[in-house]
Amino acid sequence: MPRKKKHPRESFVSMTELVLPNDTNTLNNLMGGRLMHWMDIVSAIAAQKHSNRIVVTASVDNISFRHPILLGNVVTLRAKVTRSFNSSMEVRIDVDAEDIPSGKKIESNSAYFTFVAVDQSGRPIDVPEIEPETDEEKEFYNGALRRRQLRLILAGRMKPHDAHELKSIFDMKE
Amino acid sequence: MPRKKKHPRESFVSMTELVLPNDTNTLNNLMGGRLMHWMDIVSAIAAQKHSNRIVVTASVDNISFRHPILLGNVVTLRAKVTRSFNSSMEVRIDVDAEDIPSGKKIESNSAYFTFVAVDQSGRPIDVPEIEPETDEEKEFYNGALRRRQLRLILAGRMKPHDAHELKSIFDMKE
Amino acid sequence: MPRKKKHPRESFVSMTELVLPNDTNTLNNLMGGRLMHWMDIVSAIAAQKHSNRIVVTASVDNISFRHPILLGNVVTLRAKVTRSFNSSMEVRIDVDAEDIPSGKKIESNSAYFTFVAVDQSGRPIDVPEIEPETDEEKEFYNGALRRRQLRLILAGRMKPHDAHELKSIFDMKE
Amino acid sequence: MPRKKKHPRESFVSMTELVLPNDTNTLNNLMGGRLMHWMDIVSAIAAQKHSNRIVVTASVDNISFRHPILLGNVVTLRAKVTRSFNSSMEVRIDVDAEDIPSGKKIESNSAYFTFVAVDQSGRPIDVPEIEPETDEEKEFYNGALRRRQLRLILAGRMKPHDAHELKSIFDMKE
Amino acid sequence: MPRKKKHPRESFVSMTELVLPNDTNTLNNLMGGRLMHWMDIVSAIAAQKHSNRIVVTASVDNISFRHPILLGNVVTLRAKVTRSFNSSMEVRIDVDAEDIPSGKKIESNSAYFTFVAVDQSGRPIDVPEIEPETDEEKEFYNGALRRRQLRLILAGRMKPHDAHELKSIFDMKE
Amino acid sequence: MPRKKKHPRESFVSMTELVLPNDTNTLNNLMGGRLMHWMDIVSAIAAQKHSNRIVVTASVDNISFRHPILLGNVVTLRAKVTRSFNSSMEVRIDVDAEDIPSGKKIESNSAYFTFVAVDQSGRPIDVPEIEPETDEEKEFYNGALRRRQLRLILAGRMKPHDAHELKSIFDMKE
Repeated sequence: MPRKKKHPRESFVSMTELVLPNDTNTLNNLMGGRLMHWMDIVSAIAAQKHSNRIVVTASVDNISFRHPILLGNVVTLRAKVTRSFNSSMEVRIDVDAEDIPSGKKIESNSAYFTFVAVDQSGRPIDVPEIEPETDEEKEFYNGALRRRQLRLILAGRMKPHDAHELKSIFDMKE
Repeated sequence: MPRKKKHPRESFVSMTELVLPNDTNTLNNLMGGRLMHWMDIVSAIAAQKHSNRIVVTASVDNISFRHPILLGNVVTLRAKVTRSFNSSMEVRIDVDAEDIPSGKKIESNSAYFTFVAVDQSGRPIDVPEIEPETDEEKEFYNGALRRRQLRLILAGRMKPHDAHELKSIFDMKE
Repeated sequence: MPRKKKHPRESFVSMTELVLPNDTNTLNNLMGGRLMHWMDIVSAIAAQKHSNRIVVTASVDNISFRHPILLGNVVTLRAKVTRSFNSSMEVRIDVDAEDIPSGKKIESNSAYFTFVAVDQSGRPIDVPEIEPETDEEKEFYNGALRRRQLRLILAGRMKPHDAHELKSIFDMKE
Repeated sequence: MPRKKKHPRESFVSMTELVLPNDTNTLNNLMGGRLMHWMDIVSAIAAQKHSNRIVVTASVDNISFRHPILLGNVVTLRAKVTRSFNSSMEVRIDVDAEDIPSGKKIESNSAYFTFVAVDQSGRPIDVPEIEPETDEEKEFYNGALRRRQLRLILAGRMKPHDAHELKSIFDMKE
Repeated sequence: MPRKKKHPRESFVSMTELVLPNDTNTLNNLMGGRLMHWMDIVSAIAAQKHSNRIVVTASVDNISFRHPILLGNVVTLRAKVTRSFNSSMEVRIDVDAEDIPSGKKIESNSAYFTFVAVDQSGRPIDVPEIEPETDEEKEFYNGALRRRQLRLILAGRMKPHDAHELKSIFDMKE
Repeated sequence: MPRKKKHPRESFVSMTELVLPNDTNTLNNLMGGRLMHWMDIVSAIAAQKHSNRIVVTASVDNISFRHPILLGNVVTLRAKVTRSFNSSMEVRIDVDAEDIPSGKKIESNSAYFTFVAVDQSGRPIDVPEIEPETDEEKEFYNGALRRRQLRLILAGRMKPHDAHELKSIFDMKE
């Protein structure tokens, strides 16, 4: 019997955070670790919504922090599941920041976190498959395969010559 | 005039954290985002020690979370700079966890964070070069080049056919 | 010259929080004070978005906490400005909670917070007027007048016989 | 058999907090949500002392924030139960703030929170009645009836024409 | 010209804290470090009230933690200045804890913290002298001299044979 | 049968903390209570490592805070067990702080905390004895006896004329 399919939008979560003094370094910039903490929470909620299970963080893909986010800025994080593989789910997070009094927006940043759904005793358990709807969702869905191959190679769990889809990473745009 | 060189051990930092209730999910497992927050702090201190500058997080490489860390565990994070490139520094972090009453150690986890040294107005500023001493430090130093190429490609800032060292990633062991 | 008008949706903010151990009492219920802290942050951001100014909390209307929200629940807060009066803005916040693994939703709760927009030295400054679009926004816009009269009477700043619109409060539905 | 009566002073609690950076907005003013969080804790303790039970926040009455409280100020919150109704208790909280180095006191603020006493499984349970002693306590005790009627009407649980005592609210001074 | 004198009761501060999950160890006992953090805040406020100055912690005397304080307990800390010496002030803190639902009180604990009053640039500045009123205050005032001698000897800043009052410590009761 | 002996180095723990805004007072100095909180955590971990048991803080010896530690400083705490007595362990903590960008080190500070090892129901349980190795460890081991006598006298649990080793305290150097 095939597993039930769900759409990416069913797992969509939006989270808003205000940058407070303890979140910043001595230049009054948001610390990267604090932002990753928020990314982990918002994407874990998205993975929970997709799977209706407790989830644990399995991996985080390469993240670039391009522009400083400042004390007092409002940070918006948006997450949704892009694709699932048995018990694991890839979640894409998009981050925007804004200095509201001046109306200045800080350029966005994105990341991929992977979660595993588990039962009460911590054992992995299968989750619904993803059926993408929009063009963007389909692009994320297709890209998930090569991102997964890169993750497995970097974790030493796949041999490079078996990563057929990964070759295309060299043409990949984010 | 050549820049001063420093050894990886000069930037070594060790940090110990106790896993408290607010750091855990409903399975009493340490949340990945909290661990990344600690990784960012310990590696930022290592980068500060190497550069004697304020530093900002530039990127985080792929991280795998293999084994759950539990409430009450003691987490030890060790960081040192592996290599510098003008104003940027790659830092390797190794994480261990232990349930001290039972003496049970949780298998280690490692990660690479990259920082940029900046002056008081936030402009990048050059840092000392790294001169590795031990065999392990030399291996990290050499691997830094291909990890950097992968970072630049993933950030869309390098073309794959220019990444000569990256080809060896497919034989890379962590 | 008339002030620029803005729509309620332009100030819309959604915030998601995970209930952690320190947010709960000994029955594992979310403490009311923690929820009000989140309500204040999400509604302050809505007021900032409407006014593009720094804002300070001026008052909070009567709030009822009907159903317990539990440890591990995901709390979603949605806020938008309902009406402005010179430098002050009324914001309505709607709160939902969900136990995602079981799919059980906790019945919603709502509240009104009032903010004053201020300049850098803390002096009140006028904000755009609100032009409601949907039927619900129009209902909130109209109700704002009698809620304001009740606020002023309770603060001892208006005499009851001047509160013409307030008489209808006795027929008010939430 | 009549329930035991207790005096308001038996539930009196005083709490002192120092305003730290993370409690403030970008004007260095204490955020309203943080103050409400403290109000909830001090009044919950007062309700616990009166009932010797676990208590849950049931409602909060209209609160006005008149004067800014600043970073470094010492905030004193004083709470006592004003009246009980079966399993519910109304608590009055008075707030003062002081900039101690300059000796400048910030004008007080007051609020009413309502709590329900519950047993270990969360079911409401009756609490002692209140016997006011001082003139001020008697005034709070008498006023509790009309504040309760307003609360019930605002929550849609009482019809206005049944609120006999509420009519006097229009002459009420705080 | 003699300095103004103040009474211990003028610096009296009472602080109440609720023991939350993150304040406890794996036995659900309040951690000693968290209690000392609270002791430091309440006694710093007492020293501020006495001196109307910014104060910095100079030393802490020996503290014994006799009885465990538990999750959910209400902790009450009471502080007042016992004696001043030029720019320094000794503050006594008394701690009580209570499990309110069961009415069980946890036996008290006490401590002495010493603070130095400083001006805006951090330089020590003289504070008013203390004039004790009650018998207990006089006992604390007299004992302050030998506690100070013990502090100075332990810090290597006084020679034992100059500590005339300290000899009586061997008869001291707390 | 004699208990197993362990060396001080087996319990060694190093902890690094970055001073954040909420850790500081209005002079941007680290608050003493925050530092004691960290001291308690690092020394509890050392006592856990020595005993492989849950531990509770029993007492803290006199601590002097000589030099201000500032916002943005990196604080390093190092702890190891100096001696054990049945179920109790004395831990010495050494604290250093550094302003890394300027390379300025803040002079060290030290403290002794005492812990009791307990079983799951909170009853004291014997721990291994300490066998010091270095000259410094031997000095700490020998001094532990007279520090313990001072602790017992100050807690009213030993009569001064029984404190034979304590007499030497008057020649003690730290």
